[in-house]
Amino acid sequence: MMRAVVLLSGGLDSATCLAMAKAVGRECHTVAFDYGQRHRAELLASERIAQRLGAASHRVVRLGLDTIGGSALTDSTIAVPEQQGGGIPVTYVPARNTVFLALALGLSEVLDAGEIHIGVNAVDYSGYPDCRPAFIEAFQQLAAVATKAGVESHGPRIVAPLLDLSKADIIQRGVALGLDYALTVSCYQADDDGRACGRCDSCRLRAEGFAMAGLADPTRYQS
Amino acid sequence: MMRAVVLLSGGLDSATCLAMAKAVGRECHTVAFDYGQRHRAELLASERIAQRLGAASHRVVRLGLDTIGGSALTDSTIAVPEQQGGGIPVTYVPARNTVFLALALGLSEVLDAGEIHIGVNAVDYSGYPDCRPAFIEAFQQLAAVATKAGVESHGPRIVAPLLDLSKADIIQRGVALGLDYALTVSCYQADDDGRACGRCDSCRLRAEGFAMAGLADPTRYQS
Repeated sequence: MMRAVVLLSGGLDSATCLAMAKAVGRECHTVAFDYGQRHRAELLASERIAQRLGAASHRVVRLGLDTIGGSALTDSTIAVPEQQGGGIPVTYVPARNTVFLALALGLSEVLDAGEIHIGVNAVDYSGYPDCRPAFIEAFQQLAAVATKAGVESHGPRIVAPLLDLSKADIIQRGVALGLDYALTVSCYQADDDGRACGRCDSCRLRAEGFAMAGLADPTRYQS
Repeated sequence: MMRAVVLLSGGLDSATCLAMAKAVGRECHTVAFDYGQRHRAELLASERIAQRLGAASHRVVRLGLDTIGGSALTDSTIAVPEQQGGGIPVTYVPARNTVFLALALGLSEVLDAGEIHIGVNAVDYSGYPDCRPAFIEAFQQLAAVATKAGVESHGPRIVAPLLDLSKADIIQRGVALGLDYALTVSCYQADDDGRACGRCDSCRLRAEGFAMAGLADPTRYQS
């Protein structure tokens, strides 16, 4: 059984990514990051999802991104926007996926895992540079030389199964695999109970996804 | 004046790297990582060096590498060796430079810095895969696509001025620039006062470097 490190934020995409990795028989070791994000409910969700989907292990890595700042998700002085403007949104966390993949790379080395699964996709791209295919390809090249495994054989394979899927496609795949999306939290400013605001960009993309997929949305909203 | 992010561990190499960046007129923003390393004296050293060399800002980013483990530097159950064996040593921290450069990349984006300086070198390579030229080149390719700057123009330049220098060469350059190496701590298991063990691999490389350079070594040793 091949081991895989799976990035698991607690959102819809990464939960689907985990369900897909389990479905192809991987022994999944999940990792979430406590980086001072506003939506702490995400971390609780990731723990619940890891448990429910039978991850072999789950880790939460602390990460002081607040020291770096520059994003509405890590800097409380920048407001989360309720309307998506043009360009790269202020919810973009500088180099976040580079940092997350780098830590997953370290973990893959410790666990001797042959794959790293990440749930980036074309819709989530919505202006985030580190959700593009070119980014994943460049990280794959880096992984091949950055580690002990890279010196001794070749680095782990970076698997991004959602890259070309729409939000509706992702949801349909997850539902087909029996994933309960009520476990997941997408909202950028969910309350401690995991209830969504219904107004931020992430809430909007999620609601549109369920509508396009023609499936009932189990999201719980703040009243 | 071009802005640069400079990785500053508090050791001999990164301090020299900062002195060189200052010497070519960069506005230097230094960053150190609090990753549960045994040698906490390093962090105090990095703060002193940043101040003494006139860094424009200094940050310490917390990083829970203990959750990942796999190294004598972050896992207290693995002993620091006093003799370098063959292959990649147990002091290797999985994907450490990938993680550090990823965080520096995020900071460069927030600060709009055009360069990231890192003090990796051929001697420090001593088996560490992420100190090789191929690693730096691969990270440069990644930086070009991973960030907002990468989308809008091109990413920051990765500058590794010590890459091809011996330890003796590095020390000679630093001394020529007026750097006081008494400020730096290299030992993997320095005490809280910054005094070195004199026996670990890092102590050995440092002592050899001063001897080869024909310069007095200001290292303070534990009695």
